[in-house]
Amino acid sequence: MMAYWNMDKITYVGNEYAKEFGFHYYEPEKIIAGKKMKDWLRFAVAYWHTFDQRLVDPFGDGTAIRPYDKYTDPMDNALAKVDAAFEFYEKLGVNFFCFHDRNLAPEGNTLRESNHNLDKIVDKIVEYQQDSGMKVLWNTANMFTNPRFVAGAATSPYADIYAYSAAQIKHSLEIGKRVGAENYVFWGGREGYESLWNTNMKMEQEHAAEFFHMAKDYANRIGFKAQFLLEPKPLEPTTHQYDYDAATTIGFMKQYGLDKDFKLNLEGNHANLAGHTYQHEIRVAREAGLLGSLDANQGDKLIGWDIDEYPSNLYETIGAMYEVIENGGIGRTGGLNFDAKPRRTSFEPDDLFIGHMVGMDTFAAGLKVAAKLKEDHVIDNVLQDRYDSYNSGVGRQIQSGTASIEDLENYIIDKPQKELRRATHSDHLEEIKNIINHYMIATLAG
Amino acid sequence: MMAYWNMDKITYVGNEYAKEFGFHYYEPEKIIAGKKMKDWLRFAVAYWHTFDQRLVDPFGDGTAIRPYDKYTDPMDNALAKVDAAFEFYEKLGVNFFCFHDRNLAPEGNTLRESNHNLDKIVDKIVEYQQDSGMKVLWNTANMFTNPRFVAGAATSPYADIYAYSAAQIKHSLEIGKRVGAENYVFWGGREGYESLWNTNMKMEQEHAAEFFHMAKDYANRIGFKAQFLLEPKPLEPTTHQYDYDAATTIGFMKQYGLDKDFKLNLEGNHANLAGHTYQHEIRVAREAGLLGSLDANQGDKLIGWDIDEYPSNLYETIGAMYEVIENGGIGRTGGLNFDAKPRRTSFEPDDLFIGHMVGMDTFAAGLKVAAKLKEDHVIDNVLQDRYDSYNSGVGRQIQSGTASIEDLENYIIDKPQKELRRATHSDHLEEIKNIINHYMIATLAG
Amino acid sequence: MMAYWNMDKITYVGNEYAKEFGFHYYEPEKIIAGKKMKDWLRFAVAYWHTFDQRLVDPFGDGTAIRPYDKYTDPMDNALAKVDAAFEFYEKLGVNFFCFHDRNLAPEGNTLRESNHNLDKIVDKIVEYQQDSGMKVLWNTANMFTNPRFVAGAATSPYADIYAYSAAQIKHSLEIGKRVGAENYVFWGGREGYESLWNTNMKMEQEHAAEFFHMAKDYANRIGFKAQFLLEPKPLEPTTHQYDYDAATTIGFMKQYGLDKDFKLNLEGNHANLAGHTYQHEIRVAREAGLLGSLDANQGDKLIGWDIDEYPSNLYETIGAMYEVIENGGIGRTGGLNFDAKPRRTSFEPDDLFIGHMVGMDTFAAGLKVAAKLKEDHVIDNVLQDRYDSYNSGVGRQIQSGTASIEDLENYIIDKPQKELRRATHSDHLEEIKNIINHYMIATLAG
Amino acid sequence: MMAYWNMDKITYVGNEYAKEFGFHYYEPEKIIAGKKMKDWLRFAVAYWHTFDQRLVDPFGDGTAIRPYDKYTDPMDNALAKVDAAFEFYEKLGVNFFCFHDRNLAPEGNTLRESNHNLDKIVDKIVEYQQDSGMKVLWNTANMFTNPRFVAGAATSPYADIYAYSAAQIKHSLEIGKRVGAENYVFWGGREGYESLWNTNMKMEQEHAAEFFHMAKDYANRIGFKAQFLLEPKPLEPTTHQYDYDAATTIGFMKQYGLDKDFKLNLEGNHANLAGHTYQHEIRVAREAGLLGSLDANQGDKLIGWDIDEYPSNLYETIGAMYEVIENGGIGRTGGLNFDAKPRRTSFEPDDLFIGHMVGMDTFAAGLKVAAKLKEDHVIDNVLQDRYDSYNSGVGRQIQSGTASIEDLENYIIDKPQKELRRATHSDHLEEIKNIINHYMIATLAG
Repeated sequence: MMAYWNMDKITYVGNEYAKEFGFHYYEPEKIIAGKKMKDWLRFAVAYWHTFDQRLVDPFGDGTAIRPYDKYTDPMDNALAKVDAAFEFYEKLGVNFFCFHDRNLAPEGNTLRESNHNLDKIVDKIVEYQQDSGMKVLWNTANMFTNPRFVAGAATSPYADIYAYSAAQIKHSLEIGKRVGAENYVFWGGREGYESLWNTNMKMEQEHAAEFFHMAKDYANRIGFKAQFLLEPKPLEPTTHQYDYDAATTIGFMKQYGLDKDFKLNLEGNHANLAGHTYQHEIRVAREAGLLGSLDANQGDKLIGWDIDEYPSNLYETIGAMYEVIENGGIGRTGGLNFDAKPRRTSFEPDDLFIGHMVGMDTFAAGLKVAAKLKEDHVIDNVLQDRYDSYNSGVGRQIQSGTASIEDLENYIIDKPQKELRRATHSDHLEEIKNIINHYMIATLAG
Repeated sequence: MMAYWNMDKITYVGNEYAKEFGFHYYEPEKIIAGKKMKDWLRFAVAYWHTFDQRLVDPFGDGTAIRPYDKYTDPMDNALAKVDAAFEFYEKLGVNFFCFHDRNLAPEGNTLRESNHNLDKIVDKIVEYQQDSGMKVLWNTANMFTNPRFVAGAATSPYADIYAYSAAQIKHSLEIGKRVGAENYVFWGGREGYESLWNTNMKMEQEHAAEFFHMAKDYANRIGFKAQFLLEPKPLEPTTHQYDYDAATTIGFMKQYGLDKDFKLNLEGNHANLAGHTYQHEIRVAREAGLLGSLDANQGDKLIGWDIDEYPSNLYETIGAMYEVIENGGIGRTGGLNFDAKPRRTSFEPDDLFIGHMVGMDTFAAGLKVAAKLKEDHVIDNVLQDRYDSYNSGVGRQIQSGTASIEDLENYIIDKPQKELRRATHSDHLEEIKNIINHYMIATLAG
Repeated sequence: MMAYWNMDKITYVGNEYAKEFGFHYYEPEKIIAGKKMKDWLRFAVAYWHTFDQRLVDPFGDGTAIRPYDKYTDPMDNALAKVDAAFEFYEKLGVNFFCFHDRNLAPEGNTLRESNHNLDKIVDKIVEYQQDSGMKVLWNTANMFTNPRFVAGAATSPYADIYAYSAAQIKHSLEIGKRVGAENYVFWGGREGYESLWNTNMKMEQEHAAEFFHMAKDYANRIGFKAQFLLEPKPLEPTTHQYDYDAATTIGFMKQYGLDKDFKLNLEGNHANLAGHTYQHEIRVAREAGLLGSLDANQGDKLIGWDIDEYPSNLYETIGAMYEVIENGGIGRTGGLNFDAKPRRTSFEPDDLFIGHMVGMDTFAAGLKVAAKLKEDHVIDNVLQDRYDSYNSGVGRQIQSGTASIEDLENYIIDKPQKELRRATHSDHLEEIKNIINHYMIATLAG
Repeated sequence: MMAYWNMDKITYVGNEYAKEFGFHYYEPEKIIAGKKMKDWLRFAVAYWHTFDQRLVDPFGDGTAIRPYDKYTDPMDNALAKVDAAFEFYEKLGVNFFCFHDRNLAPEGNTLRESNHNLDKIVDKIVEYQQDSGMKVLWNTANMFTNPRFVAGAATSPYADIYAYSAAQIKHSLEIGKRVGAENYVFWGGREGYESLWNTNMKMEQEHAAEFFHMAKDYANRIGFKAQFLLEPKPLEPTTHQYDYDAATTIGFMKQYGLDKDFKLNLEGNHANLAGHTYQHEIRVAREAGLLGSLDANQGDKLIGWDIDEYPSNLYETIGAMYEVIENGGIGRTGGLNFDAKPRRTSFEPDDLFIGHMVGMDTFAAGLKVAAKLKEDHVIDNVLQDRYDSYNSGVGRQIQSGTASIEDLENYIIDKPQKELRRATHSDHLEEIKNIINHYMIATLAG
């Protein structure tokens, strides 16, 4: 294998001032809260953003300089990208990757030809996997870039496009089986609407549900045992997308009997676009028992579109990893996929390494701080104190469902205002924020 | 009854230039799409915003000038407001009103005393109802203003507050029965969280669900047959509220077995705060068979908080009323409650009439345009054309669930790109917007 | 000239229900408020969005079907687009167009080659202009698409890019002179920052100011007499753009002595992204005497990026045209340039006509309603009443600057609260909104 | 003096895990970058949020429990608050406070009576100042709470209200002189509009400018030498406020000749509401030479209104303090005023101490990290490298203004695309974020 990347393997260099290039917090083999860091985090590289993304934006052509840009034939380029990818994984020190079908190989004139192109690339990937032990966290099908998906795929108003999408997924599942993908993701890129005035929302959602069932049934038939995941996003590219956020998507899954076989893949930037924090989305999924996997990125809450930054905000990774610790892990088969790309102004090959390194370090740091908060029962104590009144007296009755509305009325009807006020306590939220700051500094310095 | 309002009864004056004061579109007895306008719209006045709202904002004291401000004893003031209210209803020409318990009467030192105050006011209301035939669209309990609800009511971490809330609801249901309320609404004012770091979201949501069941069971026991409604709002006053939007609330209802007994009460301004249009929220509820009632107001999408403006935007009422027509009505017992208040700069008594008049006219106009769009099959034709491919061939198979994934693959795998593109068609959305403009002008001028 | 567009010339068909295809409000020769509609509106077609935009989005390839797509050589395609463009102008019935340099012709390997390509296309445009009388409302230089502008053009940290930009502008001005452009626009696509941590904002803004002076000086030297315009936009593509909104840009212009030679080109969608209404931005420019020209489009306030929809919201065009009427016209040389594109789902050639038709009709309707509001002194009366206290007594002293702070204290210090309250009056804003609704319906139906 | 607060003096306790209550980073006498921390930071307590704010919100009554709540006579309460305030300052360890006139003392029936009430409270404050050495960072006049200001104060359409405002300011300036305020602030609470349809924006802005001149002239006449400051905020309470952001306000100041005598007071939460970061606003003011003082608080970018949280986000204080260090200090007379309040759920007296402590520590930490970044030339090196091309060759000519547009054309016109691309470099923004993380951890742990 020729060397595509002018970069040494990235190693842990300690947490002193950033003199040396390397991880400051991520020590893959270090045990945190009973598990190796690498097993808590299960980092994955996203093929599309890392190897296929040209760093375009709506007002500009791609700026990316990539070492395999010398090939003119798209299949040659696709094959070279596989070499570059596996070298990249090794140098970065990750064990997982994720991919879309259409990012691996160019489309042909028919689906058969596209499948053929794809198979050739997957042959090479499988070979590399055997040598390297690299695993696929998840694969998926790109059903939003090509103009045929202009009005959706599984929710397209056009039966031929629905049929095409089903056939594309079929092959994508077969590939998932070949590469041993641990999960299979559906992001509803254009499964939504531009305008309610021309949309039969109910029919479209029924089509999507049937589509998901059909895919899962086929996976079962061929013995592809991946965990299936839906990935919420509220808008962009369409005006409204059906899988708006975790709560909406869970409602959809339950409505159509998909909650047994599907879980959620959640992303920080998508959370923000829906008006939520990343931690909120993970909490919603965790409490529903439906946390599947995570996309690791961050948005800018002052910006109204998906920017897919590499994670660098420690507050966000502390919150996310705290939920993960409470969940006992991201999910049985989940991991942290970097659905993130360099800024368009960070266009050199090295920026791909730097971005991932920052993201991995930020999540590793988040894990360490969250684990320390858990170990010291910081949040557990806050919760225990706050809800303590449900452990005795009328609270215990309420909690156990043995208090009737009349009982409660009798209990409370003559309590004076002042006594009622004394039943409530200050949350001291400012102190909690302070503790998180100090835990962040003290844990990461330690 | 003394005359509180210096205003004549508002009547229909026709749709010429606004020379005369009166309704330009609202003719209560006029038949539109097979029903009287007043029966489609079932307008209700909101007691709190109309008679109790002082037009405060976070930076300013109340500006409202109200004709009953002369009373210093709160009970005298409360009784005077009842007189003023019924005179207002009559002059405005509405048949319904809505109220919170705590807006009718002042709190006492205990719940028993508060109930006592409330009962006295309700006695007078019931008397007025017998004379006037005025109906209560819905009533509710204010469980967010008093400091005891600082951390929620049904989701309070404090058992005494939960008990108090249950007891308050109990009496509120008894009052609902007395006044013959057709619906009973729960708006989760502080049922949410300030910070995830001190919140057991799952426990709080379970408490809320149990609370709703307890309330419904009690209503059944006392024979109060109102339709129960939940009202979504995403945030404000709390950082995050559990009933975020229609989809989230429907998911919650189904999760906890509340969807048989509860429906939704939806509001335009709340929709916007959740990132949705009013029409979207109504569509979601309609397609789930859970549209209960509507709060009629509008927000300003450039403003990030609840402003509760009287509706004046015709585009929004056309969209809302189109969904209502498709639903065959707002709901079995639903209506349009003006959860709206004058701007703080519109502080004179007349502004209450003007605001309602604008709102009623805007919804009446919306109804007329929506009915004409329906009558002329404008939108129905758009939908029929757009989804036509599901009526035959592979589309019909998909629609009937008889196509296997292998069938679909066989059908499509060798279709060339160009043919696939020809399966999709332009949506001509710009033309649809144009047609709505022309229907708006032509119908309302007609 | 071969016929590229399968469309007849669009004509005025009256304002009855949209049975016929054509303008419902736009009658170019009709006199409104003392001027022909076409002279108030001066509609222009934007070359880039109309002929060069493939309807891509960040998640999808272009869907546009265009009649000149058969050419493979970029120069052949560029020449064909000129034919198609002039046929389009004629059939749509507009007198103006606008263009970016790089939308007309492909880049060569050097600026000299790019200039050469451009000149060939401009030769053909000038010929067409002589035959048709079509005028250029404005031209501009695209200094944001090519990767060399990754960090800005006039604000680039790289001197070579600054030099390139200056040279590109130089030729763009020469072309402006050749085509007789009435205005010359600068939209600061990437003139802003990604991060403050790597930005010398002051130095970059000084570079930009110097750049604008250099451009204006050169235009003067070659006798290109166009009005120079800056176009505000707050963000996208960059995180922050220097010309954030009208007020910020005016501040910049005054700071660097540009306000004598430059005015503003304002856009509705950009206004919304900055948290403002379109009318606000026009008002700010108008009151500063700096309204130059308008970009006609609309955004969706629930969407956080630039969508450039064709205008269809009558409320927005009424507000915009009211400001224009108060200004006596858009500006000495201004017009309404449709910086708008079809939705990605409206991908057929006809959609370009439909979109412009809707936009023109919506602005024509806005003009008619605004003119009627002005003719009937509706808003003038509101203002006269509201500020009337400045016409006499202490108000007149304040207005004339003859009241000292001591005078004002003496005048007011013993006035009791009640009297002070009586000095303020309700704004009755709800009534104003109602009047606008009625004027809209009655004027457009009339 | 009786002890109002059950709290010991807060001291520095070191930066180990938050075992002890106290400052972890704030050491007032410690020298950082050549100055004592207390001199860089000059913390001030805001009288209104700390002693007068009842923790109301638009949906709820005040929850605050305050030790002086026992007084029923408003003047007794006002006098008790002064005692409590000075005890608070001493225990917190700050040297400055800020106040609004109307937060100190209740209004009387006339301005003369209000002045009289106020004077009595100020007498007591001055006494305390003499004993304690406490200084006033700034004072201001509340011209937005009382209904008379419903439509603004200096921009009120009602001349009597303008006169009242001028008279109120006159006395406020006299008080500023008595207490030795180092600055005087104008926050334009209602100086803006609800609707453009009833607003003469230009006239209102001229009135405001005249008002500011009148105030400054009076201050000069009475020898009150405070620095005058305007405080931007984009919206809330009004729909649009004239002092939208730093850039807009600077434009206004220059337009009306106020930039010699006025500077800016900037706030983090207001910055976010205008779509900016806090650092951006400070940068804009700093580069204009108009940074006056800072309000220390933070917003929640997912929330669309002013929440005035105590600062706890280290990223934001690092950014803010970096700008302050570049500026050589906040301003000649500036400081950090905590325009912040506890969450409504943090209603106990202790929360006032905790909140300030968190805020002070977060800013102290920000200062330390920013100083270290400066000391190590981290950002300076980034900037020097990035703009290096302006130090030689064509860049130096551009920088010195000696390059003509023709020179630049000659220089660049034949450079091939590839060479031009090589002129640009990756910004490696991800690495910069990484460095800031590491500096944050390493500096604060150190």
